[in-house]
Amino acid sequence: MASKAHKTPFKELAGFAQTLADISGRVILPYFRKSTAVENKGKDQTFDPVTKADRGAERAIAKALASRFPDHALFGEEYGSTEGNSPYRWVIDPIDGTRAFIMGSPLWGTLIGLLEDGEPLLGVADHPFTAERYWSAEKASFMRMGDAKPKRIITRACAKLADAVITTTHPDLFEDDLQRAALDAVKNGARMSRYGGDCYNGCLLAAGFVDVWIEPNLKPYDIAALIPIIEQAGGRVTTWDGTSAANGGNVLATGDPRLHQHLLKLIGNL
Amino acid sequence: MASKAHKTPFKELAGFAQTLADISGRVILPYFRKSTAVENKGKDQTFDPVTKADRGAERAIAKALASRFPDHALFGEEYGSTEGNSPYRWVIDPIDGTRAFIMGSPLWGTLIGLLEDGEPLLGVADHPFTAERYWSAEKASFMRMGDAKPKRIITRACAKLADAVITTTHPDLFEDDLQRAALDAVKNGARMSRYGGDCYNGCLLAAGFVDVWIEPNLKPYDIAALIPIIEQAGGRVTTWDGTSAANGGNVLATGDPRLHQHLLKLIGNL
Repeated sequence: MASKAHKTPFKELAGFAQTLADISGRVILPYFRKSTAVENKGKDQTFDPVTKADRGAERAIAKALASRFPDHALFGEEYGSTEGNSPYRWVIDPIDGTRAFIMGSPLWGTLIGLLEDGEPLLGVADHPFTAERYWSAEKASFMRMGDAKPKRIITRACAKLADAVITTTHPDLFEDDLQRAALDAVKNGARMSRYGGDCYNGCLLAAGFVDVWIEPNLKPYDIAALIPIIEQAGGRVTTWDGTSAANGGNVLATGDPRLHQHLLKLIGNL
Repeated sequence: MASKAHKTPFKELAGFAQTLADISGRVILPYFRKSTAVENKGKDQTFDPVTKADRGAERAIAKALASRFPDHALFGEEYGSTEGNSPYRWVIDPIDGTRAFIMGSPLWGTLIGLLEDGEPLLGVADHPFTAERYWSAEKASFMRMGDAKPKRIITRACAKLADAVITTTHPDLFEDDLQRAALDAVKNGARMSRYGGDCYNGCLLAAGFVDVWIEPNLKPYDIAALIPIIEQAGGRVTTWDGTSAANGGNVLATGDPRLHQHLLKLIGNL
């Protein structure tokens, strides 16, 4: 991936991804925890601040993209898909972890991924409330807290499930028999499991604090940005069949490729 | 509680609770996310930074307390119990949410509670990583972010389970049949459920973003500090039998007292 000739230089694209995260965070953060008692009289109104933040951010991103790279395509949760005339397709989720956002939890983030000819090229995962940003470079991944200096992140070694810390957003999202069996097999064999987190789980895995992140039924914009962040940090991300996770589906991410192979086999034998 | 004559003025005790949170945060925060790949070669070593942070903070708290209020008792997770010669007993958990701490999640906190004659008098819940602090005053609760001005927090109205956002730390902690039935009844009737969080759930409830927080088998230091924070914000905290939760056990907290009554009945009829 890194050695491929890009139509647009990688650094230019990577810098623009950071700009998009800046733009998006400025739109979203003022809406966080603004779902006050007064606003919450009706059930439907509870979701208003989220919807406003989500749509507002995606609109701002679409505008910036159209101005800077008018020939790039955009695929986002709120606005669907626009077609471009280039190898590039931005895959965006302004608020990944909507439910966390609604309940005031810090564990939501903005996902900005870029595909080149359908393959994940780079990603940014931004957490405006905790002031953390995680991103992939060409041959490494980084994070920074607030205005601090970026730190390189690396996944940790963990070859055995029995030593692993595993996470997933919510066990009830595993709906069919295979999905439930996969979660049980992974969770029951692990040292420790923890629920909640959405995209935050992927960042903790890339940074070497979590060993396995498993999710069912992901959308492309839930995972596209995180694939390069995790893989350039040394981890692996695929579907449960071992194919590319760029289009979502049942997704397995591990910090240690040896554990990935083991878990694909474990799930394949269910 | 507020009108009772205190041996030590409330303000003095409340100010000292804030001091303890400052002391504790300074000890703990440098250990957060320091469980690097290198340190994690052995399973047992993974827990080292936590243990060091936990014990270090409790030692610092015990020292400060012995110097300022030598006749107050202290009950903490790490050091057990010391007896005092006063109506006051500090109930402390330096790192509530040890598992969150281990995996780099922001959802851990320091709990500092004070009982007077066995009754919760005041509490501080501090989240050093997110720079949030929640606390109770005599007739209100407050939070602040970083150095910003404190904001009063109030629970939100939510009389019906069908409208409620419910949280608990992990469903597997509900071990016996009654516990599992209670979680199912509450979760399946709710609008939305979310796992993870430990003490952070109690703070989000006090601040009006979560309606129900249910936990099995709590220790006194998991809940003592949060009772006054939630109740002075307008919520209710009891055991599932409707008795005081100051000694832990199966605990139910709600933002709206009407929902509390309804859920106690629901659980009582299981």
